Amino acid sequence: MRLAERVARLGTETAFAVSARTAALAAEGHKVYYFNLGDLNFATPRVVVEGAEAALAEGKTGYCPNAGIAELREAMAQVTNETHGTSYGLNNVAIQPGGKPVIGKFLLSLMNPGDEVLYPNPGFPIYESMIQFHGGVAVPYGFKEGEKNFALDLEGLESSITDRTRLLILNDLQNPTGAECSPEELKRLAELAVEHDLYVLSDEAYYDIRFEGDSQSIVSLPGMEERCVILYTFSKKFAMTGWRVGAALGPADVIETIIQLNINDESCPNHFAQYGALAGLKGDQSEVQAMLAALKERRDTAVDLLNSMEGVRCYRPHATFYLYPNLTGAMAAKGMDYNEFHEALLMETGVSACTRLHFGSELPGETQRYLRMAYSGIDLDQIEEGLTKMKAWVEG
Amino acid sequence: MRLAERVARLGTETAFAVSARTAALAAEGHKVYYFNLGDLNFATPRVVVEGAEAALAEGKTGYCPNAGIAELREAMAQVTNETHGTSYGLNNVAIQPGGKPVIGKFLLSLMNPGDEVLYPNPGFPIYESMIQFHGGVAVPYGFKEGEKNFALDLEGLESSITDRTRLLILNDLQNPTGAECSPEELKRLAELAVEHDLYVLSDEAYYDIRFEGDSQSIVSLPGMEERCVILYTFSKKFAMTGWRVGAALGPADVIETIIQLNINDESCPNHFAQYGALAGLKGDQSEVQAMLAALKERRDTAVDLLNSMEGVRCYRPHATFYLYPNLTGAMAAKGMDYNEFHEALLMETGVSACTRLHFGSELPGETQRYLRMAYSGIDLDQIEEGLTKMKAWVEG
Repeated sequence: MRLAERVARLGTETAFAVSARTAALAAEGHKVYYFNLGDLNFATPRVVVEGAEAALAEGKTGYCPNAGIAELREAMAQVTNETHGTSYGLNNVAIQPGGKPVIGKFLLSLMNPGDEVLYPNPGFPIYESMIQFHGGVAVPYGFKEGEKNFALDLEGLESSITDRTRLLILNDLQNPTGAECSPEELKRLAELAVEHDLYVLSDEAYYDIRFEGDSQSIVSLPGMEERCVILYTFSKKFAMTGWRVGAALGPADVIETIIQLNINDESCPNHFAQYGALAGLKGDQSEVQAMLAALKERRDTAVDLLNSMEGVRCYRPHATFYLYPNLTGAMAAKGMDYNEFHEALLMETGVSACTRLHFGSELPGETQRYLRMAYSGIDLDQIEEGLTKMKAWVEG
Repeated sequence: MRLAERVARLGTETAFAVSARTAALAAEGHKVYYFNLGDLNFATPRVVVEGAEAALAEGKTGYCPNAGIAELREAMAQVTNETHGTSYGLNNVAIQPGGKPVIGKFLLSLMNPGDEVLYPNPGFPIYESMIQFHGGVAVPYGFKEGEKNFALDLEGLESSITDRTRLLILNDLQNPTGAECSPEELKRLAELAVEHDLYVLSDEAYYDIRFEGDSQSIVSLPGMEERCVILYTFSKKFAMTGWRVGAALGPADVIETIIQLNINDESCPNHFAQYGALAGLKGDQSEVQAMLAALKERRDTAVDLLNSMEGVRCYRPHATFYLYPNLTGAMAAKGMDYNEFHEALLMETGVSACTRLHFGSELPGETQRYLRMAYSGIDLDQIEEGLTKMKAWVEG
């Protein structure tokens, strides 16, 4: 069939192709180490499963309101008010089938064709894809290596603002870099948003995946609540990636539009799954805490092993379950480009990772080379075994 | 926030507002009769619930493939090949979070801005909304009262085709009219599609909600498989409206694009719900059969009562769970327009229905007046009680 012209502008998540190839290799009997995908190899907490099972048994199998069940909207507003200092109520919350749909619905609600949208690169590839698909102009901003972690390139971002810039996508606690803004940087971003009248998508998918300190949100800063939409997801915190429950939180007018998009698109998220999410929010958090403790141990083991490799260096981010090691030296020593290194690493050691290129095209002047390694889907002993093999190969 | 310009073109399902108002009245203690919404007051069959429960217990809680689980794609292809004579395989099926998302994804995949799209009016209001929202030109075609049922206005449709017409949305076994094309009419539609190189969305939401005879699909006709996309849903047949599982079936290239839209939008439908759907397709059909038998009894009771009212006439459609009685005489006798009649009927008798206006604006020259009455969510005794009250009020 003759596809519409916009389809040529539609991107994808090439990380899924890495997963498919890795799974195929495993099926052929290859030993593989799953550092490739941000899925979790933890069971969904019992309290969540039981909440959904009870709702299913009670017959919560018909349509629910398009905005999601009222109890979950109210609970989301309350939890967010506690952590963010916002004053959200039920009308500021639209439950979604996952966090990801918030990206497209934010853009469809607020972006006109030709509007410029600032987005992170490296970053979650769906931002760029959906901006371009729906007729916007995707303007990337980058990250720099700082003292203890990656830092958002604020000067670069600021210099990219034009009078056509309308929206800013911020993924603080960032996939793939683990970058996190300082309070001063968040403040400067908020000032820029006010100064240039930008609306902000605050993608907070990893807000609760945190091992030290407290997460901050741009939404908490003065003047921000009225110009921000939060992308929230149950996927990561509650090991619910396959449940598909998330939410958009923001000013009532844009949330009303997003609810109208729900009506036009998927009607509502799965009814009884929302009761599972509600039980997760309100119930016992011990399994969530245990998961975070296990993730922290994985992080430390992986960071230590990566930093022990010649030609590799790696930060220890306080949040997310991603590492973004700099392998410029190791790749130069092998004389390989991204694709060659990725393939050789997989075939020679079984270590399946993503490269920088799975998170956008290299920016002008970019000289350093990175992998993205997720430790959410691989156990500690496999991290040790895989990265020990990787070290031997990198240094061999 | 300043909303994007396209939001002004976004429609809605005003039937949901009727539901909200009806529920509010009931909460205040009013006795109401739920003829308003196409939801089902049947429990999801045990075989489906058990399939999902088992998958949940087995930990099917992580991401599944973006196109849906392979077993369900294969089962959908096989079932459709048996009923439609198609030659679909796994690559012709993209599982969706409900049937409704297929409408938007079909349009995004195949419609360029300015393309004309033929759609039914009266009809499911999301067609017109999404055509206009995504920049197309919505061109309605109507229905006529025939001998035994409503008939699609083929001449009207044909005369609306221009050299900018690109897509045809067909909802045979139609909501709200219950209209069903004869084999000759389907053949003529297929000829028009070939002659004018139109692609067709065949919305088959009610294909299996059938009480006499066999459902036919335009997709079964020569030359159609390569230019049609089927909207399939588990919602109606398996009383799974709140589960959100459906599918798009069609040529591999458009299905590949729809899968890419899944990647960019909701990632995948709920993982374990798909195992429920699979169990529904493959398992014991006795609860589905019992539901159809109960629906048939409701239909007959409702049709007989409606036809007994002065100034009302109503067909007895072989499929769907909707009636579309002509109330021109009754409304004239009351001296009321649609909104007045709708409101008075609800307040005076408790009967909550939708009017023709919930399914689009009246077409030029339209003189007859209709209600849409769903009998999917109301028990037989309530149908009798409610329509008896309605008869007394109409004739009073």
